[in-house]
Amino acid sequence: MPKFMDVHHGMAGITAEQLMEAHNADLAIEKDENVHFESAWADPEAGVVYCLSDAPSAEAVQRIHERAGHRADEVHPVPLSV
Amino acid sequence: MPKFMDVHHGMAGITAEQLMEAHNADLAIEKDENVHFESAWADPEAGVVYCLSDAPSAEAVQRIHERAGHRADEVHPVPLSV
Repeated sequence: MPKFMDVHHGMAGITAEQLMEAHNADLAIEKDENVHFESAWADPEAGVVYCLSDAPSAEAVQRIHERAGHRADEVHPVPLSV
Repeated sequence: MPKFMDVHHGMAGITAEQLMEAHNADLAIEKDENVHFESAWADPEAGVVYCLSDAPSAEAVQRIHERAGHRADEVHPVPLSV
């Protein structure tokens, strides 16, 4: 399954609890699109969140994020990893 | 140890071999700054590389990347993760 890194801006001040809630909202519906959100990392000061997922397409990743209430600003296929 | 996500732009066309070489160049010297580069993901089409590390500071991450020949464009502390 292809991997994707998506990026959310404008998240300044995000808390650990809010990150967990947002991630859980994705996990609750991700199976509808055969997506799996593996990890997410947040920089609350710059307001950036990175999410790593396995998914059939960037569009599938975005559809889950949109339905969960947090559209990504960028969704990058990352076919290479080490 | 704090976690960091750093971002490199302008990497369009990067290959799996080049990503591995760059990562290995970091690993070879990372102990000098008590940094550990855990993973890296590349989008060769958009030319973006994301690196996840454990490090004492953003400056330590950048010093290793610079010495390895690939300065990061952004280094974000990511104190929150899920």
